[in-house]
Amino acid sequence: MSKTYKVTGMTCGGCARSVESAIKAEAPAAAVTIDLGTATVTVDGADESQVKKAVDGAGFEFHGAA
Amino acid sequence: MSKTYKVTGMTCGGCARSVESAIKAEAPAAAVTIDLGTATVTVDGADESQVKKAVDGAGFEFHGAA
Repeated sequence: MSKTYKVTGMTCGGCARSVESAIKAEAPAAAVTIDLGTATVTVDGADESQVKKAVDGAGFEFHGAA
Repeated sequence: MSKTYKVTGMTCGGCARSVESAIKAEAPAAAVTIDLGTATVTVDGADESQVKKAVDGAGFEFHGAA
């Protein structure tokens, strides 16, 4: 089941790719969809704690469920 | 002693911050300077292997010494 989180600080496709890579480093099987317009990250196959750790570690701001 | 590497795929300040965060996750004491214009990352206090691992893991392309 996918869950959507608010993540700020992403401003371009490179940022989005970086967040996706970081999440997949924590949870290799995760499916990640990023919407820069709404500053949201939708993830299937990872726990919220994994997503938070990945986003924080990549230098962006994790704000919990969108 | 600092060393400068070519890193492509960074297009904005968010990308640069992401690369810096990833390098500091590998080498917390590293000093990192990123120049988007020349696509270079200058690092003091980390081995090349640590920088490569961080850049690759963050979803950008590491091309070795600039």
